[in-house]
Amino acid sequence: MPLLKFHLLKGRTDDEVDRLLETTHRVMLRSFRVPEQDRYQIVTEYEPSRFRALDTGLGFERTEKFVLLEVVSRPRSNSDKIAFYENLCHDLANECAVPPSDLMISFVENTDEDWSFGLGRAQFLEGDL
Amino acid sequence: MPLLKFHLLKGRTDDEVDRLLETTHRVMLRSFRVPEQDRYQIVTEYEPSRFRALDTGLGFERTEKFVLLEVVSRPRSNSDKIAFYENLCHDLANECAVPPSDLMISFVENTDEDWSFGLGRAQFLEGDL
Amino acid sequence: MPLLKFHLLKGRTDDEVDRLLETTHRVMLRSFRVPEQDRYQIVTEYEPSRFRALDTGLGFERTEKFVLLEVVSRPRSNSDKIAFYENLCHDLANECAVPPSDLMISFVENTDEDWSFGLGRAQFLEGDL
Repeated sequence: MPLLKFHLLKGRTDDEVDRLLETTHRVMLRSFRVPEQDRYQIVTEYEPSRFRALDTGLGFERTEKFVLLEVVSRPRSNSDKIAFYENLCHDLANECAVPPSDLMISFVENTDEDWSFGLGRAQFLEGDL
Repeated sequence: MPLLKFHLLKGRTDDEVDRLLETTHRVMLRSFRVPEQDRYQIVTEYEPSRFRALDTGLGFERTEKFVLLEVVSRPRSNSDKIAFYENLCHDLANECAVPPSDLMISFVENTDEDWSFGLGRAQFLEGDL
Repeated sequence: MPLLKFHLLKGRTDDEVDRLLETTHRVMLRSFRVPEQDRYQIVTEYEPSRFRALDTGLGFERTEKFVLLEVVSRPRSNSDKIAFYENLCHDLANECAVPPSDLMISFVENTDEDWSFGLGRAQFLEGDL
C-alpha cells in the first residue's frame, strides 16, 4: 500500500520500465513516508489504438512517453499528494526522460479495513502495521 | 478526467475499437459537460478464459460484444450518471452494435486533489481547471 | 457486483486460472451473500518485469503464485471483509496451492448509483436488484 498501476504505451525496454518503477518507488517513499518494502507496482502497456490521452484543454502535447499512473491508497493529505505530483514529475523528467507534460496521476482512496497483505489478515486493523 | 477503462473480449478490429471509444467519448461529453479534450481512455482485451461476466440473476444473456466500463471521476450527480448509462447504452447499440444487455458500467469517485494532468500540478486545486 | 480484478504473474494454465476464479467466486458468495450469478471477474497476467510485490516489512516471501486481487464493491462491513480475507486465503491455499503469504487484497468501495448491469439502467436505484 499504496498500489501503483502504471498505464504506458508499448515501446519501453525492460531497463526503461525498471528505472521508471524504481524512480517512482523512491519518490513514493519520500512523499508518503511508508516502509521501504511497501512496494506494489503493476504495469500495463498498450498499443496506441487502445490508449487515448488528450489534455483537457491545458495545452499539453502528449508523446509516446506518456505515463498514466493510478494510485490506490489509504487517505493522504492534500499536501502529501501535491508533493508526490511535484516530486514525481521532477524525478521522472530527470531520470527517465518523461516530459513533465507526459505525467498524469489519479488517486483513489480507501481505508484501513480495505487491505490484506497476506495470511488472510487485515494488517492495518490487527496491529501488524 | 474522467478516466475510462474499457474491458473487452478479444476480437474487435481497430476500427471497431476506435468507434467504441469515439462514441463513448461523445456520450461522456454530453452527459457530464466537460471539455472536448477531456479524453482519457484505455482498453484492455481478454481471452474468454480470463473474463467472467454473468448477470446477477437479471436475465441478461452476455455475448462476445460485452463491454465492461470502469469510470474514475470526480463526484457526479445521480442524474448525470443515469443519463450517462442511458445515453451510452443507446448510442453503443445504434453505432457499435453492442446489445443493450452487453453494457456494464461501474463508477468510482475521487475528488479535486486526486488529479494531476501534467507538470506535477494539481490543476483542479490550482485554478488551471 | 462486486467486480473482481485479478493481477497474476504469467505461467498458470487455463485450468489453474479457472480453478482460481471458481474458488474465489464461491468464497465471495459465502462471505457477501450475493446472488449466485453475481459474478464479474477479469484476469490480467504480467511478466515479472512488469510486476513488483514486496511485503511492507511483514516478513512474507512472495512467489510466482502471488495473487493481487482488487475488489470494487458497494460498502461491505469490516466483518464481511475480514471473513472474505480469511476464507479466501484458506480456500486458495487448499484448492489452488496459493501460499497464504501470496494473497494480497485491496477493496475500493462505491455505492448504489455507481452500477449499471445492462439496458442502460441503474438496477440498484430502480428496484431491479
